[in-house]
Formats: sequence, C-alpha cells, structure tokens
Amino acid sequence: MYEDFLSSIAGVVGADQVLTGDEDLVPYGFDGTAVLKQRPLCVVFPADSLQVSGCVKLAALHAVPVVARGSGTGLSGGSVPVEKSMVLVLTRLDKILEVDERNLTLRAQCGVITKEVDDAAGRFGLFYPPDPGSMKISTIGGNVAENSGGLRGLKYGVTRDYVMGLTVVLPDGRLVELGNKCVKDVAGYSMKDLFIGSEGTLGIITEVLLKLLPKPQARRTMLALYDSMEAAAETVSAIIAAKIIPCTLEFLDRMTVGCVEDYAKIGLPTDVEALLLIETDGHPVAVEDETVRMRDIALKFGAREVKVAVDEAEGARLASARRQAFSALARVKPTTILEDVTVPRSELARMVKFIRLTAERHRLLIGTFGHMGDGNLHPTFLTDERDIEEMHRVELALEEIVEETLAVGGTVTGEHGVGLAKKVFLKRQFSEASYELMREVKRALDPRGLLNPGKIFD
Amino acid sequence: MYEDFLSSIAGVVGADQVLTGDEDLVPYGFDGTAVLKQRPLCVVFPADSLQVSGCVKLAALHAVPVVARGSGTGLSGGSVPVEKSMVLVLTRLDKILEVDERNLTLRAQCGVITKEVDDAAGRFGLFYPPDPGSMKISTIGGNVAENSGGLRGLKYGVTRDYVMGLTVVLPDGRLVELGNKCVKDVAGYSMKDLFIGSEGTLGIITEVLLKLLPKPQARRTMLALYDSMEAAAETVSAIIAAKIIPCTLEFLDRMTVGCVEDYAKIGLPTDVEALLLIETDGHPVAVEDETVRMRDIALKFGAREVKVAVDEAEGARLASARRQAFSALARVKPTTILEDVTVPRSELARMVKFIRLTAERHRLLIGTFGHMGDGNLHPTFLTDERDIEEMHRVELALEEIVEETLAVGGTVTGEHGVGLAKKVFLKRQFSEASYELMREVKRALDPRGLLNPGKIFD
Repeated sequence: MYEDFLSSIAGVVGADQVLTGDEDLVPYGFDGTAVLKQRPLCVVFPADSLQVSGCVKLAALHAVPVVARGSGTGLSGGSVPVEKSMVLVLTRLDKILEVDERNLTLRAQCGVITKEVDDAAGRFGLFYPPDPGSMKISTIGGNVAENSGGLRGLKYGVTRDYVMGLTVVLPDGRLVELGNKCVKDVAGYSMKDLFIGSEGTLGIITEVLLKLLPKPQARRTMLALYDSMEAAAETVSAIIAAKIIPCTLEFLDRMTVGCVEDYAKIGLPTDVEALLLIETDGHPVAVEDETVRMRDIALKFGAREVKVAVDEAEGARLASARRQAFSALARVKPTTILEDVTVPRSELARMVKFIRLTAERHRLLIGTFGHMGDGNLHPTFLTDERDIEEMHRVELALEEIVEETLAVGGTVTGEHGVGLAKKVFLKRQFSEASYELMREVKRALDPRGLLNPGKIFD
Repeated sequence: MYEDFLSSIAGVVGADQVLTGDEDLVPYGFDGTAVLKQRPLCVVFPADSLQVSGCVKLAALHAVPVVARGSGTGLSGGSVPVEKSMVLVLTRLDKILEVDERNLTLRAQCGVITKEVDDAAGRFGLFYPPDPGSMKISTIGGNVAENSGGLRGLKYGVTRDYVMGLTVVLPDGRLVELGNKCVKDVAGYSMKDLFIGSEGTLGIITEVLLKLLPKPQARRTMLALYDSMEAAAETVSAIIAAKIIPCTLEFLDRMTVGCVEDYAKIGLPTDVEALLLIETDGHPVAVEDETVRMRDIALKFGAREVKVAVDEAEGARLASARRQAFSALARVKPTTILEDVTVPRSELARMVKFIRLTAERHRLLIGTFGHMGDGNLHPTFLTDERDIEEMHRVELALEEIVEETLAVGGTVTGEHGVGLAKKVFLKRQFSEASYELMREVKRALDPRGLLNPGKIFD
C-alpha cells in the first residue's frame, strides 16, 4: 500500500536517497535517548528546502506521519520515529549560506553542525553563543527545534535568543519564511517563536537566520573545589549578589568528579563534594577584575581551593572536566538516563540535596552535574535497562525528583525537550487551560497530526 | 439590549467602575495615534486578574468585543476601540508584587508604569533594560502586548527578551499562567512568546514576570555632530566593525535637531545634517576604553565635533536631545504622524536618504530620528489632518517609504505595532502562507474574533 508513496518520494529526492531495507532503517530508529526506539517505514535524505516541502506534501497526501531529524543527538526521544512514518534526515542541508558582518547575522541550512556555525562566525571575529554539550555533532536545525541551551545560558541565553528568522515547511508542505535581519520587528505575531522549541511537531525548520555577537576580547576560567554542596551554592548566590554575571557557572557533584577524573585524568581531587567551573568573558580589565572578585568570593564561602587558569589552554583543560561529565558517567553502567529538571536558581542547593537523598533512599547511582548559573540540573542515573527491578526504582526516584522540581516552581525540562521522555510529566507542570492552549495551537497548525506524532502531548 | 450585560459587568467590578456616559467615553476612544478614534459601548476598570477574567467571560456570553488598554500611549491605534465594544482600562492593576533578588526577577501587575518597574529594580541595584520613549507614562502590560522597544535595543534587546512569565486572560475568560522563574525552560510550546506582541488580539495580559539585570557600574554619553548623514552612518558601521556594542546609538536629522534646539535650548548647533547620541555602559574601564575608541572613530569618519559628557548629569542633558525629539517635532504642526519603519542596519543610510528625497518630492515636512544601532527609524510627518490635499501627499509618501523598506528587507513596524495604522501594509510584508499562518493562530485562540477586533488583520 506504500508503493505509490515511496515511488513518488523517490521522484522528489532520487531513488538513492530513500532507504527502506530493514537493516538500513535501524540506525534511524533511535536518537541519543536511552531505551526508546521504533522502526519507521522509510528514511529519506532530501537535499534542500524544496525537496523537504515536496516530501511533506506527498506525506500529507498519503497520510504518512513525518519525523524530521538532524544528527539524532536528542535526549528526550524527540526524533524517535513512529510506526509507518517517514524519517526525513536533514543532514544534506549542510551549507552556511551567508555571514553578514554588517548586520551581525549568519544564514545556514538546518543540517549545519552547530560548532561549524560558531567556527564560521569566528572567522569574522564574531561568535554564536549557544553551546549545547553536543555542539560538535548536533545540527543547528535540531538546536532550534529543541531550543537547546548550553553552558553559557546565564549570561548569553539560549538558542531562541539568537534566532532572527526561520524557513519552515508546514504540515501541508507549504514553505514559509519568518523573521528577517531587523533587530526590532513587531509586525504580526512572532510565529518564529512558536516553531523554536516545537520539537518538529508544528513544522520542519529548513533554514535559520542567526544573530551573532562580537567575540569577547578576553576570557578567564577557574575551578573552585568544595567540601560541601551548600558552600558551592552559596558561592553562586554571592557572585550574583555581587552583580557579576559570569558566562559559565557549572557544577559537578562528587560522583561526577570521580568519574571524570577516572576517565580523563585531569588531576582533580576525587574527595570533593562539589566542583564549580566558573568563566567570565568580556573586556580584559573587566575580566581580570571579576576573576579576582569571584576567586575571593569562592574562598570566603568555603572553597577548599580555587585554581585560576593562567591562559586559554589551561582554561580549556579545566573546562574539559565539565565538558566530559556525561561521557565519563556513561562509562560506569550499561544504561545512562540523563535528566534535565530545572529550578529557579534560588532553589538549586535544596534540589541537589534532594536528588542525593533520593538516590540513597532508592539505592541508585545518580551523578549530578549541570548549569548552576541557570538552575538547570542534569541528574544522571547510572543503571542497566535489563534490570527490571532497578529500573522500577529509577522510575520511582525520577517521579519524586519531578514532583519536587514542580513544587519549587521548576520545569520538567530545561534544555532537552519533552519529546517522548517527558510527556507524562508535562501535564503536571501546566494547568488544564494552559495545556489545552498548546493543544489548540497544535490542532490549528497540524489538524491531522501528521508531524512528529506522539511527541510532547500524550 | 446591553442592559443585562452592563448590569452583570457592574456586578463584577462595582457600578462605580463602569462608564457609559457619552462624555465619559470620549477619553477612551483614542490612543497616542493621530486621526484614529471610535466611541466604545462602555469603559470598565477592573481591579485584578479575576475581575478581568469575569468581565471577559461576560463579554463572551453576550458577544461583546473587548479592547484592553493601559495608559493609551500606543502609536498604531492598537487600543482604539471598535463600536459597541467594552474597553477594559487596566490601570488599577498597578502593584509591583515582588522583586526577587536571588533570581533577578520582578513580578508586577499589568498596569504598573514602566518607569516604576525600573525604579523598583534600581532599589536593589538592578535594572530593567527596555526603555520605550513613553516609559514615564506607559504601562508594562501595554509594553508586553506591543513588544515595545526603546533606546537600548542594540545591546539589550526589546521587551520580549525580558519576559519570563505572563498571566493571561484568554478570549473565553479562562486565566492561564505561562512561564516561570527558570532561566531555561523548554517544556512545551513557548506560548508566552505568542502573547508578547499580539496587541491584545489573543489574550489580555494581567500580570508579568520580568527578568532584571545588574545595573551597569558605569555609563558614558557622547554626542557627535555631522555635516552629512553618510558620515554618521559610516561611524555606526565602523563602531560595530570595531566589535563595540554600545547601549545606545541614536540619531536625529537636521530638521529634528532644529526643532529640539528651538524647544529645549540645549545648545545644539542647528546647521548639522545629523546628530548621533552614543552611550556605552558596563565596567568602568571598559566604558572609558570604548568611549575613547568611539570618539576617535566618530572623528575619523568625519564628525565635525564630539562632545563627551563629563558626568551622568551632563550625559542626561545630552541624552535629553533625543528623548525630546518627538515632543519637539509635535509642536511644529497640528498633526504629527510618527512612523516606525525598520531596516537591517546595513541599509540605514540609504533609507534615511530615501526618506529625505521622498519628503522633498512630495513637498512635505518629515523629521527623522531613531535608533541607528538597530535600524529602527521614526520618520515623523509634520502635517495637518484638516488639509485633505496634504494628507493625500502624506499617504503617497508613506506608501513609497513602506515599499522601499520592504524592498531592502525591512519591516513595516519595528516597535510601535500593527494595530489599525499598519494593517494595510502587513500583508505586503508576508507571503500568503505566512500571513495565513497568523490568521490560523488567531482563529484557533479567538474563534469568534471578540478580542480587539479589526487590529493587525484586515
């Protein structure tokens, strides 16, 4: 029954850009999320926006669900296919189309690797601030669809803050261009903001117009080591109270520090309760001044030791402790479940403690690291999906962490998205009216529910 | 036929908070926009979110259109009523509910004056960056509904960038809370972004949760005077190319400078072609450094003179030249039509020249000032609405300016909104599909079209 459909898709993209063989489909049945997988009907590699539009039009005609994906690094199952769906792999749309120095903008196709966006900006003395952990392999289109965060969120914000325009294929295949190079624009509803973070459920983003910033002239990195998480949290509060907004304010708990040291041999003491990675950037004098003030604050609030990097190279080495946290934890056990709860910054110390106690109560290994500056925590469950009994305890612990998060005014996902993994929790975060409001938007834009079905909503 | 409706509204807000007398309605039949006015059915002053919700529920029941307004300072007719509508004046919702120093947030009711938001933040050493020209009289709810800009857009962005949460009354009267104090949150669609800038057509904003920043430690202000607009524009480009992002980069053309001097006696030479107001803020050393570099750039690119303020007081005096531009121009003729076209920064010099030539061609007085840093221009027509023939030429000129704006990738409104004034132009800026997309959202959220009807869309 899908023969007509598949041959017309081949007519759009070429027969060699369509996969249907069982083994060929396997790599596109999962993303970076543990446990979740599903085989699609076919996998298609369009070359440009028009081909994406053509494929989506045919899918609408044949009522075939469409799931778009870039590199498949997502951590909430947002690009895991549904049965009998067409997966659109957008990695061939990999061109940087323009860097406009005068307007500080960059235009790229959705399949460009995030780091290449920043590299291209760098060649003009500019930079693209959002730096999700996966930036060396994730695509910019995926970043926009998920509204990815990163390590510099406190000072520089998230992906949404750098999207000036989008080209989007709507669920019926129409192509629309939203936004422009104007720094201010209030003409009509901000439709681009609706597509940013919509996880492929409202439209497929094929091109992005991004805002760039001048590259900061200087940067300094330091590590502060603590014997208590409370002291680390108080340091963070004191830095903000001192009116300093560092670009990076990351932390690792004891278990994560131990795994990182075991993995990367950076020379970290493994008996610390908390490690803070702090970076400040900007004018050289301001950077020096803030570095000294933050070191003093860290020591005043009980840091056992503060290492200030002498240069960029040492700074990068210190920062690698944080960059490698997830990989280091992932080696410990067969299954790694990376959570993404986020709380108002003021609730951070309390939340970290709650997670530690929850792990003890359920006899689980949870390493926690995350973005202390913006309240975004990544409690990481080190487990084994084949151990049914332990997985049950993981579920119970996760349940308790989510409940506590919501009780203190937090969100079930700070930067990974809802996808499949968080949709059971989403309803609890929203009132009935505000949840229904989102569904109304989904129904209005995709009345037949063909775009990334089963994601976000139950 | 409205008796039942009016008495039930009086039951919600109290009889003394409902106006229906002809003379009482007059002040609520217009806003800050020239020419446009319409008498409503009634004017109602609710006290809080629940009363707003109650009023909107009754309006839905009786199919009465609802138009919300704050101080009525809008410049696109966005709060001009329609016939037989209920105007909800939200100025009684005037409480600042919380300043949260640890999370750098401020919660306020929608009717709080914008400047009071900034003043309240200031008492904690914080600040609220968006500073629309009307900030001393406009309400924060109106700012959010219009996504207002201001003088600091280049460095600090616009109102949208500082909205973390909203309480909104939907067209059927349901109350929803959107967003929270989390710096990162990707749970579901960003519905708050849909309401920001929706000009009262999708919901009525009754409370806002705003992001604050630490107040910059230092600021320096300078004025640069030019004999040619091109030299001023080249200075702006050179400042950006030097990787400096000043907080303010405003300009006034010759006519505006003349009117300001005549009005405010600041001591400006009236024979300059262009005046740039430049401000930088941040770390004191960075500010000093940038001030010197920008002064040198201005002189290198042909400034006749650069006046650097020696202190904050002199800075405020220099800045008042720009702050008073609109008032100064408005004195010249009976009718002042303030336009708001915005172009990519690279197109600014060309656009200013086009406006000047258009004014000459149509024998019109147009003073132009605006935000050079973000391409947001305010060509201001000085005219007389009683002069039918001249008003016809105004229309022709405006038409040409809008066409040129769109031709160079600009927008018909940078910060004033579409309202009634720009809706004929909106369609031209959007493709049929993207215009239709916005209408789909409007139909989904307000299927009966009761909220601020006739605005944005034709």
